Amino acid sequence: MKILGISGSGRKGSYNTALLNAARELAPEGMTVETFDISGLPLYNQDLEAKMPLQVGEFKRKIREADAVLFAVPEHNYTITAVLKNAIEWGNRPSNDNSWDNKPAAIMSASSGPRGGVRAQLHMRQILVDLNMYALNRPLLLLANEDEKFDANMKLIDPQTRETLRNLLVRLEEWTRRLRFSVQNVTA
Amino acid sequence: MKILGISGSGRKGSYNTALLNAARELAPEGMTVETFDISGLPLYNQDLEAKMPLQVGEFKRKIREADAVLFAVPEHNYTITAVLKNAIEWGNRPSNDNSWDNKPAAIMSASSGPRGGVRAQLHMRQILVDLNMYALNRPLLLLANEDEKFDANMKLIDPQTRETLRNLLVRLEEWTRRLRFSVQNVTA
Amino acid sequence: MKILGISGSGRKGSYNTALLNAARELAPEGMTVETFDISGLPLYNQDLEAKMPLQVGEFKRKIREADAVLFAVPEHNYTITAVLKNAIEWGNRPSNDNSWDNKPAAIMSASSGPRGGVRAQLHMRQILVDLNMYALNRPLLLLANEDEKFDANMKLIDPQTRETLRNLLVRLEEWTRRLRFSVQNVTA
Amino acid sequence: MKILGISGSGRKGSYNTALLNAARELAPEGMTVETFDISGLPLYNQDLEAKMPLQVGEFKRKIREADAVLFAVPEHNYTITAVLKNAIEWGNRPSNDNSWDNKPAAIMSASSGPRGGVRAQLHMRQILVDLNMYALNRPLLLLANEDEKFDANMKLIDPQTRETLRNLLVRLEEWTRRLRFSVQNVTA
Repeated sequence: MKILGISGSGRKGSYNTALLNAARELAPEGMTVETFDISGLPLYNQDLEAKMPLQVGEFKRKIREADAVLFAVPEHNYTITAVLKNAIEWGNRPSNDNSWDNKPAAIMSASSGPRGGVRAQLHMRQILVDLNMYALNRPLLLLANEDEKFDANMKLIDPQTRETLRNLLVRLEEWTRRLRFSVQNVTA
Repeated sequence: MKILGISGSGRKGSYNTALLNAARELAPEGMTVETFDISGLPLYNQDLEAKMPLQVGEFKRKIREADAVLFAVPEHNYTITAVLKNAIEWGNRPSNDNSWDNKPAAIMSASSGPRGGVRAQLHMRQILVDLNMYALNRPLLLLANEDEKFDANMKLIDPQTRETLRNLLVRLEEWTRRLRFSVQNVTA
Repeated sequence: MKILGISGSGRKGSYNTALLNAARELAPEGMTVETFDISGLPLYNQDLEAKMPLQVGEFKRKIREADAVLFAVPEHNYTITAVLKNAIEWGNRPSNDNSWDNKPAAIMSASSGPRGGVRAQLHMRQILVDLNMYALNRPLLLLANEDEKFDANMKLIDPQTRETLRNLLVRLEEWTRRLRFSVQNVTA
Repeated sequence: MKILGISGSGRKGSYNTALLNAARELAPEGMTVETFDISGLPLYNQDLEAKMPLQVGEFKRKIREADAVLFAVPEHNYTITAVLKNAIEWGNRPSNDNSWDNKPAAIMSASSGPRGGVRAQLHMRQILVDLNMYALNRPLLLLANEDEKFDANMKLIDPQTRETLRNLLVRLEEWTRRLRFSVQNVTA
């Protein structure tokens, strides 16, 4: 099972990117987590669609090839980051080519504050409805006061968070099988 | 397949209740839509949990027996109604007995204004995450300017809305089979 | 200056109600905080408007007489409580008598979990837009892990929270003067 | 009074940009509406803050010089656009220099669909709380089915929308005087 991991932060020392790296380490057998760096995509503008940028084409191919998507969602100004919103728009365009369509998804967040990205996750879930993605409800992974949970090399060391993340990945695997099954069988 | 239909309005001439009646009429073969009137439930107060009201017990039994839930969601003040929120709280309590847990759901709204309940649906979807319910993404059923879509007997006569509602019910049936399958098989 | 304090919880041991009591204690000179118990209002139903319940009339009078409103907003299921939503609807009805209109407001929350009611506050702010109330942006008062902040008699003892609450009340007083001034002068 | 107008769309034929142009035309005497094109700003990344891009410096100066901000808010995927979110982040950074702080604001949207950007406006209002901006509640300007409201030269010709927009600008002027007054007098 191929999971596409997307971090909503482009900065080098991002804890959200570090969470994705931990996911790669903790993925159950048979699951691979591949990441794509969205911080280099051009700023979305409909006028650019006439000649789709090459990077965008590659990004959309990665989404299509994935069985499910794992979003690391930082919170800026009570919502998701511009970097993440920008990638979402490109994946959703042009209007007849929504690469996100029907993909299972999971969400996690790291935050330096005490609230752990809860507002950004709420907005993210609303956006996923429009993309026609189906997100896991549980477990919540809202990592507050992030700097205490990683070591100096940005490795996730907090035992409880490691357990929650492992659980999230197992649940995502089940969820993906569920939805894949039904696409083939139920709607046939 | 048993669907529990819940209208977020208690008034007699409610178009949301009328939408539920239309759902009963348009349900595909093998699906029954039973409604429960939530407007007579007492106003939720944790202190009442010591001796759960009889009506609440009956309501929770109806939820548990249902394969899925169909919510007719009016919008008051940019969010769901007190009547609906009240029923949601009772169904979710006491803390070790969330009757809503793991149920598939679908949402629809009728509204007298031009916006059709879109804000209330957004809030409703966030609430469903906490209840651990899984809601269909599509089709959207946001019935604006409702009074033109029903006849004098509150029967839904607008052909396009009837088609959307029929489609919603078919999709809910598929969705419910999908989730039921996986509960038995995938997580076993 | 008269502040109407409204607690979104009706249970006896409510920490949100206890926050309102602390507000009464900490109010700056010249400000009084009077509370109204909304947990006894009947469940809103438009059909009841033909003969408005007596309690509702009294509640609406209290709102109108207040210079500003202070809401203690618990979070149930990622949103505000049914008890609070119910009071909001009554205050907003009938359609030509929105008692909330143009009132300044402040929001605070206590919660037993680590997130402190942040989701409920977001929904509350959206609702206030429809009511045409103007809410303070700052300070945030999101009291997490509430049981550590009060003593056995439900008195707020946490020094930092007491300071934040005092600050909130001072800011609400300024905000109310600001909006009152302008109603009389700017729009004249 | 100087209003900074910001369009959340960078495409040439944007109806939201056209709404801003209409605002310039309809501004009451004594009010100027100047626009800034945010679609050329680099994609926000905290690592760039070490050497702030020149355009960003100019943008932040324009915000600071404005008495109030008028946002034209398109809706993409149930929320605001990446282009707008990106500008918001730059204006809010670095952490000790929030250029948006304490500014009055107004919001308007044009949309090709029937819902007129209502979801994007909800998210936008939540973001404004974090920026410590104060947004007008009324009038709502949610322009649905936009293509019927402009002529071939993208001039706003719909009489009702022109009236609503004129009203919005008058109200924004009052609102700005109100908040400016109080900063000088009430908090002194």
